Amino acid sequence: MGTTARRSIWAWGLESEEPSKADRKAEAKRMAEEYGTVVDPPPLPTIDRVDIRAPRIQAPDALATICSHDKHDRAAHAYGRSYPDKLRAFQGDFRNAPDLVAYPSSEAEVTAVLEWCSDNGYAAIPYGGGSSVVDGVNPPEGYDGIVTIDLTRLDQVLEIDESSRAARIQAGVLGPALEAQLKPHGYTLRHFPQSFEFSSLGGWIVTRSGGHYATNHTHIDDFVESVRMVTPRGVWESRRLPGSGAGPSPDRLVIGSEGILGIVTEAWMRIQKRPRFRASAGVRFPDWAAGYEGTRQVVQAKLWPANLRLLDPAEAQKGSGLDGKQSLLIIGFESAEVPQGAFIQEAVAIARAAGGQIDDDAIVVDDGTGKPTGRGGNVGAWRDWFIRAPYAKNTQVGLGLIADTFETAITWDRFPEFDAAVRTAMTDILQRVCGGGEIACRFTHVYPDGPAPYYTYAGFGTPGAELEQWNMIKAAGSDAVMNAGGTITHHHAVGRMHRPWYDAQRPDLFAGALREAKRSLDPNGVLNPGVLIDP
Amino acid sequence: MGTTARRSIWAWGLESEEPSKADRKAEAKRMAEEYGTVVDPPPLPTIDRVDIRAPRIQAPDALATICSHDKHDRAAHAYGRSYPDKLRAFQGDFRNAPDLVAYPSSEAEVTAVLEWCSDNGYAAIPYGGGSSVVDGVNPPEGYDGIVTIDLTRLDQVLEIDESSRAARIQAGVLGPALEAQLKPHGYTLRHFPQSFEFSSLGGWIVTRSGGHYATNHTHIDDFVESVRMVTPRGVWESRRLPGSGAGPSPDRLVIGSEGILGIVTEAWMRIQKRPRFRASAGVRFPDWAAGYEGTRQVVQAKLWPANLRLLDPAEAQKGSGLDGKQSLLIIGFESAEVPQGAFIQEAVAIARAAGGQIDDDAIVVDDGTGKPTGRGGNVGAWRDWFIRAPYAKNTQVGLGLIADTFETAITWDRFPEFDAAVRTAMTDILQRVCGGGEIACRFTHVYPDGPAPYYTYAGFGTPGAELEQWNMIKAAGSDAVMNAGGTITHHHAVGRMHRPWYDAQRPDLFAGALREAKRSLDPNGVLNPGVLIDP
Repeated sequence: MGTTARRSIWAWGLESEEPSKADRKAEAKRMAEEYGTVVDPPPLPTIDRVDIRAPRIQAPDALATICSHDKHDRAAHAYGRSYPDKLRAFQGDFRNAPDLVAYPSSEAEVTAVLEWCSDNGYAAIPYGGGSSVVDGVNPPEGYDGIVTIDLTRLDQVLEIDESSRAARIQAGVLGPALEAQLKPHGYTLRHFPQSFEFSSLGGWIVTRSGGHYATNHTHIDDFVESVRMVTPRGVWESRRLPGSGAGPSPDRLVIGSEGILGIVTEAWMRIQKRPRFRASAGVRFPDWAAGYEGTRQVVQAKLWPANLRLLDPAEAQKGSGLDGKQSLLIIGFESAEVPQGAFIQEAVAIARAAGGQIDDDAIVVDDGTGKPTGRGGNVGAWRDWFIRAPYAKNTQVGLGLIADTFETAITWDRFPEFDAAVRTAMTDILQRVCGGGEIACRFTHVYPDGPAPYYTYAGFGTPGAELEQWNMIKAAGSDAVMNAGGTITHHHAVGRMHRPWYDAQRPDLFAGALREAKRSLDPNGVLNPGVLIDP
Repeated sequence: MGTTARRSIWAWGLESEEPSKADRKAEAKRMAEEYGTVVDPPPLPTIDRVDIRAPRIQAPDALATICSHDKHDRAAHAYGRSYPDKLRAFQGDFRNAPDLVAYPSSEAEVTAVLEWCSDNGYAAIPYGGGSSVVDGVNPPEGYDGIVTIDLTRLDQVLEIDESSRAARIQAGVLGPALEAQLKPHGYTLRHFPQSFEFSSLGGWIVTRSGGHYATNHTHIDDFVESVRMVTPRGVWESRRLPGSGAGPSPDRLVIGSEGILGIVTEAWMRIQKRPRFRASAGVRFPDWAAGYEGTRQVVQAKLWPANLRLLDPAEAQKGSGLDGKQSLLIIGFESAEVPQGAFIQEAVAIARAAGGQIDDDAIVVDDGTGKPTGRGGNVGAWRDWFIRAPYAKNTQVGLGLIADTFETAITWDRFPEFDAAVRTAMTDILQRVCGGGEIACRFTHVYPDGPAPYYTYAGFGTPGAELEQWNMIKAAGSDAVMNAGGTITHHHAVGRMHRPWYDAQRPDLFAGALREAKRSLDPNGVLNPGVLIDP
């Protein structure tokens, strides 16, 4: 009943893209060489061997045609795609799968499903592309019925306003389908999170998603012109405006609400002309500190590059073959209207003055002729790699490797101490849990007042005990981030996973205000219970 | 007990800057010539001749030293500085002046005053510089006691983080004192609303103030890194972060809250290096439509000029001596780090391609040498004129002239029809009320998806009946703005004045959520009652 190409019940992507036995054997062999441990890949789960309890509820007649009790549909909607999600799904643990999955294809159907849930006290879980890595779509315990509302049939670009460069778009559309509908008109939303293939516009809005563009307008927050949201109390719709000073922004309460206030059905989004002019440069710095100091100076000049990604020595070595001491700053400019050569020269001049090195002929400028920019491929190629990356991890599930990422943001003044504290905490916990491991960092987004560091780590755990081990590492990393003054999430969202740290981060009085606001919209407390605040 | 230099009880600015009898006689003469009506200037009000009821409440002993019952203090805090405010104050109508004015000089004192108000059900009116033009500081009817809390003693820049370019600043500081404290360090907040002299940081934050910079980050919203707010239920403080995706932004609920949720006591604000490089150009377009179409194309190229102000033919004629048919686009660039010549050339090229005209030698570039930019003075001079403008209106109060402004924002696709509808409505109502009048427009801020038009109008009313006449004009203009799809305010705020139109604009469900949020913070409903929502 879902899409024609079936999603894997455990891996990132479609069933047809699941790794083969041979892929996994090869990966196990590679891992054995790297970590000195022999692992027999456990068998891949199949839907036939999965146990799911019988559905506890039945859709009323009026909704029967849009609701599915199908075992595969239910299993495929039981988890997001975090490390523990994939592991639990791989292990065949579907004990709390939704009782049914609803596939509304109109706002009226969303309303009807939500009313049914609210009237009966069933947990209603809004579901876009299912790419949450924070338990944002995982059904909570303690409900007599769980209805996951899959919004992917709301997948149309309804209207394009070329004059204002804005489009009215249904919230369930996934990234590729959204871009495919804008492209013939010469436009792009230009929002490319790593989850792009399997995340939706509505999901981006309610999780304050960050695209892969690095400075100025990066969060989806800045591209929302107005939103329309269905709640158990009716429709919430803001006026379409380029800017306003009329009270606190209603949109900013919806943005980041993670499905607890309502279900976004459509939004007017600011779109852009597809870029024609590009420029890029990779600047090497002698070490990590020189790299982040140089990055600070470039971003504070407010040239607003599309990309400004700093790789630490570990990442720069792995990704670009540097010497393991140098850091690498990737600078990219893009525009539909204006040649970017002058901009990149200014940015490179600042980076060089801060100790960065790059040969003149390594600064690549595409003045509209389509010349590829950047060494080893243009921005598009990088984007493709970036979006394909989650597939690589599918082969590793259940082999004992504990590898994950976490992301945050911190002001520049505190970053050096923050970074040291996080690395120390992670090195310690990886030592304790895995007997050692690796940690690396890059800046995914950069603001004039601070970077958004993105940490990746890996250690070899005990096959079968990875979940518990991952939990210990996650807790240690999150504690370090919070104690050193960062945010528990810059763009992965809060969900249920980040609750303990989020609860410490947000003002208590804000939590109280949000709880009351939710109560006024969702009096029976059915919308995504446990996310952001307690039910 | 207030500042040493006393504020006028009716005019913009200090008592010492009130217009003289001679000034007003001269203005009345000028007006008689322009409108063919002879007006005898009514006498200027003085505090001695003003009637104010005896204070109905007494401060408790612990607060007595920071509370004033002084007649002048109470009169000076009875109004903001809208057209009707000045008129009513000029007419000596202080019937609802606050019973006392509190001058806390620490957060503890703010807390103590607020607790006293909350415990006794007295209306607590937060007051920064008192420049509200929307009844934002005017005491409401129906309270047994009214306490205006003047925050201007919280006037210190507490901390500067040069690395992150941010500063921790007390919320009561007025614009000039704020800039004076940043200047020795080479920094500026660079937020210059027209009210700059008599508006405070906290006031800017809670009203979503717009500075005079025109594109990209214009609203104060974008400069807030974190806020600290006192409520009757305790302190609300957000974590200092350059960016975050952790739930709906707590700051964005404070920003625009207009004093109904709490009193902002301090904030970490993003500051900037003082600009060294400047460039400016004034581009003429053959008519109004060509001007706004050219402006749209310039802003959509995302060069992010500091200024991008379009004057309609009426404004361009009055302000710059153009022919009454042409519109004028003023483009300005500024930077502390990067020469701006290349940027302005790109912007001018786009404007010219759209039909704009400017001689090459009228494009002025200051490459750090301090060469003045712009014809007839640099950006600073314009800023000075801009900030002095409210003084000019002091001489006109009570002479029968009805002259005011209103501002909004609208997407580009709807602007032509919107502008025509607003002009028609204003022309009609000025004809009916004043037998004729003038209306003109400029864009104060411009977004890629639409402009923020700022309308000025003037007509000659009936001396003594101006208030009622102004109300009719205000209603007609506001109705037109709302019916044609605009926002009731882009940066003047809602207050009590804009309530009918704001109530129609914001989603009803948002109003309910905001009401519940307020109730959780201000259970006795004492904070600025009647602003944004009903008590």
